[in-house]
Amino acid sequence: MNIGKRLWAIAEGYIPPSSPEDTYELKSHEAACILNASKFEAHIQITIFYADREPVGPYRVTVPPKRTCHLRFNDLDDPEKIPVNTPYSSVFESDVPVVVQHTRLDSRQAALALITTIAYADD
Amino acid sequence: MNIGKRLWAIAEGYIPPSSPEDTYELKSHEAACILNASKFEAHIQITIFYADREPVGPYRVTVPPKRTCHLRFNDLDDPEKIPVNTPYSSVFESDVPVVVQHTRLDSRQAALALITTIAYADD
Amino acid sequence: MNIGKRLWAIAEGYIPPSSPEDTYELKSHEAACILNASKFEAHIQITIFYADREPVGPYRVTVPPKRTCHLRFNDLDDPEKIPVNTPYSSVFESDVPVVVQHTRLDSRQAALALITTIAYADD
Amino acid sequence: MNIGKRLWAIAEGYIPPSSPEDTYELKSHEAACILNASKFEAHIQITIFYADREPVGPYRVTVPPKRTCHLRFNDLDDPEKIPVNTPYSSVFESDVPVVVQHTRLDSRQAALALITTIAYADD
Repeated sequence: MNIGKRLWAIAEGYIPPSSPEDTYELKSHEAACILNASKFEAHIQITIFYADREPVGPYRVTVPPKRTCHLRFNDLDDPEKIPVNTPYSSVFESDVPVVVQHTRLDSRQAALALITTIAYADD
Repeated sequence: MNIGKRLWAIAEGYIPPSSPEDTYELKSHEAACILNASKFEAHIQITIFYADREPVGPYRVTVPPKRTCHLRFNDLDDPEKIPVNTPYSSVFESDVPVVVQHTRLDSRQAALALITTIAYADD
Repeated sequence: MNIGKRLWAIAEGYIPPSSPEDTYELKSHEAACILNASKFEAHIQITIFYADREPVGPYRVTVPPKRTCHLRFNDLDDPEKIPVNTPYSSVFESDVPVVVQHTRLDSRQAALALITTIAYADD
Repeated sequence: MNIGKRLWAIAEGYIPPSSPEDTYELKSHEAACILNASKFEAHIQITIFYADREPVGPYRVTVPPKRTCHLRFNDLDDPEKIPVNTPYSSVFESDVPVVVQHTRLDSRQAALALITTIAYADD
């Protein structure tokens, strides 16, 4: 099955700075859900863009064939952590077609907020 | 009326594990809203992709001509139920053009959260 | 300025059935935000698709040149009202290019929920 | 890196009229997140469309090379402020490819609501 694109961008990016809720599921986080429906490993390079300094990356993620990866930006730490409470954007370059969707769970407040959107795919 | 595509993907997928609210409308659920605006029956095969095991499917759904189907992933059970609290992705293959939109209602907490996005359409 | 498409679909559709909040701004509603950036009047025909009965329409909306229209589905009443608590989809056919975005405000509960997505554009 | 388009539209637009929460992060706001992944400055002209009066603009924004800009519509004031509690749409014209995503934080109520979607890209 051959579905997706090799180049994706998420222009919105923001990890909420605190979270009264401390379970893994309900902790504030920002995620890129990556579907690799192909029969090949997807080697993905992620670059993070900031408002006032040079881009950071590549962060490297491998998604096995026929697998999904719900990647939390909070968990990226090589080459460095993404700071909380800081606007950023991200670009994904994959060697096989993948599908990328952006999701944030914001639990700064007792009542959580959720957002999602398909990312921007380019050729 | 001929609108839509035959191949769609939703990279995000997650059925919240519990729901204090137990009415049908407010129970936590994840849905794919499928519009078949054509004059032909749409026969749709859905494949579910996981992070750490083989894809499961096809799940088969038929949408009559000129009808919409707001399909809850919670309700799929053949070949098997989709487990709650587990990241997944989904791919839709239809024999006629359809339009697919992804929606989740999360009522784990007293104040519900909602997300939606157009799915990813491919050629 | 020539931006947009003539054919759009929103596969998700649902008007929440009640609303403790009764101001116009915070009343539960579902909207299609339509931008007509062209210098011509946009004559739009909307068809509503249901799960278990024939489509209803056309509903006719005119958006003046260089104007936006945040249309509430709740307000449509010719040829008939859209019932609340009922899944539907919508298709928009315009004679000039427009841009359509889907938004719902759900105030069934005290804490409102919001969703939005770009609609599906076809050629 | 060459990703994005030069022409974008956000059909939805609405700045909530009040905000009990008064920190910068949690104040009600509407944003366009703009990624310029290119090596050139992006000069962007924004036009605001209303329901019942002539469009206003251009608002001019410059995004440096390899930078993101999370622009709050609330902050635009030249040629004029965008009124709160008023439906609008926006069009973005850039001289280099950019990616635009729409986000709103609505904190009219104690429990905030969030929405996001990729904007509409045109050629």
